[in-house]
Amino acid sequence: MILDGKKIAAEIYSSLKIQVQELPTPPTLGIVLIWSDPVSMRYIGQKEKWAKYLGINFELYKFPIDISEEHLKQEIQNLNQNPKVSGYIIQFPLPKTIDLHSITQEISPLKDVDWFHPENQGKTLIGDTSGLTACTPAGVMELLSTENIDVVGKHVVVLWKSNIVGKPLTMLLINAGATVTSCNSKTSNISTYTKHADIVISATGIAGIITKDIIQESTIVIDVGFSLYDGVIMGDANFTEIHEQGNLITPVPGGVGPMTVAMLMKNTITTHKRQLWIL
Amino acid sequence: MILDGKKIAAEIYSSLKIQVQELPTPPTLGIVLIWSDPVSMRYIGQKEKWAKYLGINFELYKFPIDISEEHLKQEIQNLNQNPKVSGYIIQFPLPKTIDLHSITQEISPLKDVDWFHPENQGKTLIGDTSGLTACTPAGVMELLSTENIDVVGKHVVVLWKSNIVGKPLTMLLINAGATVTSCNSKTSNISTYTKHADIVISATGIAGIITKDIIQESTIVIDVGFSLYDGVIMGDANFTEIHEQGNLITPVPGGVGPMTVAMLMKNTITTHKRQLWIL
Repeated sequence: MILDGKKIAAEIYSSLKIQVQELPTPPTLGIVLIWSDPVSMRYIGQKEKWAKYLGINFELYKFPIDISEEHLKQEIQNLNQNPKVSGYIIQFPLPKTIDLHSITQEISPLKDVDWFHPENQGKTLIGDTSGLTACTPAGVMELLSTENIDVVGKHVVVLWKSNIVGKPLTMLLINAGATVTSCNSKTSNISTYTKHADIVISATGIAGIITKDIIQESTIVIDVGFSLYDGVIMGDANFTEIHEQGNLITPVPGGVGPMTVAMLMKNTITTHKRQLWIL
Repeated sequence: MILDGKKIAAEIYSSLKIQVQELPTPPTLGIVLIWSDPVSMRYIGQKEKWAKYLGINFELYKFPIDISEEHLKQEIQNLNQNPKVSGYIIQFPLPKTIDLHSITQEISPLKDVDWFHPENQGKTLIGDTSGLTACTPAGVMELLSTENIDVVGKHVVVLWKSNIVGKPLTMLLINAGATVTSCNSKTSNISTYTKHADIVISATGIAGIITKDIIQESTIVIDVGFSLYDGVIMGDANFTEIHEQGNLITPVPGGVGPMTVAMLMKNTITTHKRQLWIL
């Protein structure tokens, strides 16, 4: 059976659209863009499309590739202070002349819809919901809850441990009451863990690493993988054989991806509501 | 074999004492105390003893039990701005009239030696070493590294998921390259996990929950448990039978406890050095 992220995201968008209509003023999502490669532009296009659909203003802040770190920090301070901007993201990659770490510390935690500030990261660790949540992990949790998949007491295996997916997702699952195993590229035999998992969530970027042989028929597979082979988008799971085996599985594309963008919009509405003191 | 935390802590103290002597000015550790029950006073006594041994100034800031939240916040701001205070901790418990959450947010992340501010918590999540680390988890990591126990590729099971031990320890282990399983009180059968663990780290407060039957002979047991039965201090592990089986194990007391206090002193020296711009 397919866990249809695209369909669930569409339902979330319907609900968010009504929320935006009921607001006294529309939220604004800002995108700071320096390096405009085709992949980044594709992601930005998706964000713009859904922001506009929801009635969220979309503002692109484009800066030259030779912008100094100091100048960029000043522009970020301007966004922090601009009452018209509800939340904003800094589109990666950044030029090598800019120190990513010192830039993300400048983002106001209140406008940090892409979860880059340590204050929001810390709130995720301790389960403090007054912060903002990383979009992809939030999308996975929303997908599970929408499908009434309770994680309490379940064994969830998370593959790998990136700062934007694996680690925050591990924390959200722990906070939700799951028994969680975090695997990484040094884990000697991932099947030792996946074979005994109720849910496997894979974000390795290695196409086909999750096969039907390393899971049980009852294992739910959430595929956060994304890689390109000859222009074809691939997930981490061997979707066909796992789907044929009867497992519940998210497709790639159309699984976690749409949920991620929906969560970015949700974060933007949240920051706007908080700035209006209605949340 | 015994993992002798007391002995390792003593070695750390020797090294820290030399560090303090080489500083242009001594660090100062502050303790904010409101509710002075006997257990708190015992902990404070330990901290004072070791601070003085190291040459760290020790300042007790005692406030009346009916202090208002507003007044306490002002006192915390004073500590944040006081250049003589390198780092400080707020001794728990607090009276019920004080909101713990809003108080911890007031602590300057730069002086947060007990790891209560979300900014330090977030830095632990993403593995950013410019922050401070929770004392007990840091003590466990230090104990493992001192004993040359490499966690890369090892399976470590962490029992339970508190905000001060289980969760930050899980993150430190993940960052260090371990495969980590986080168990909680809803985990159906902990032996499923502990039986296949290279290292079990238990912080449940349930005396005797770790028995020799649920681990292998090669499993290293780190006991962070602490409970009192008829005045006797008990750890989580059935120490005698596990020790007899030949496992490497920390005793309680004299295992992780001394490491925790040593890490508080280390954090205090770190904050002081950073404020002097020599770190």
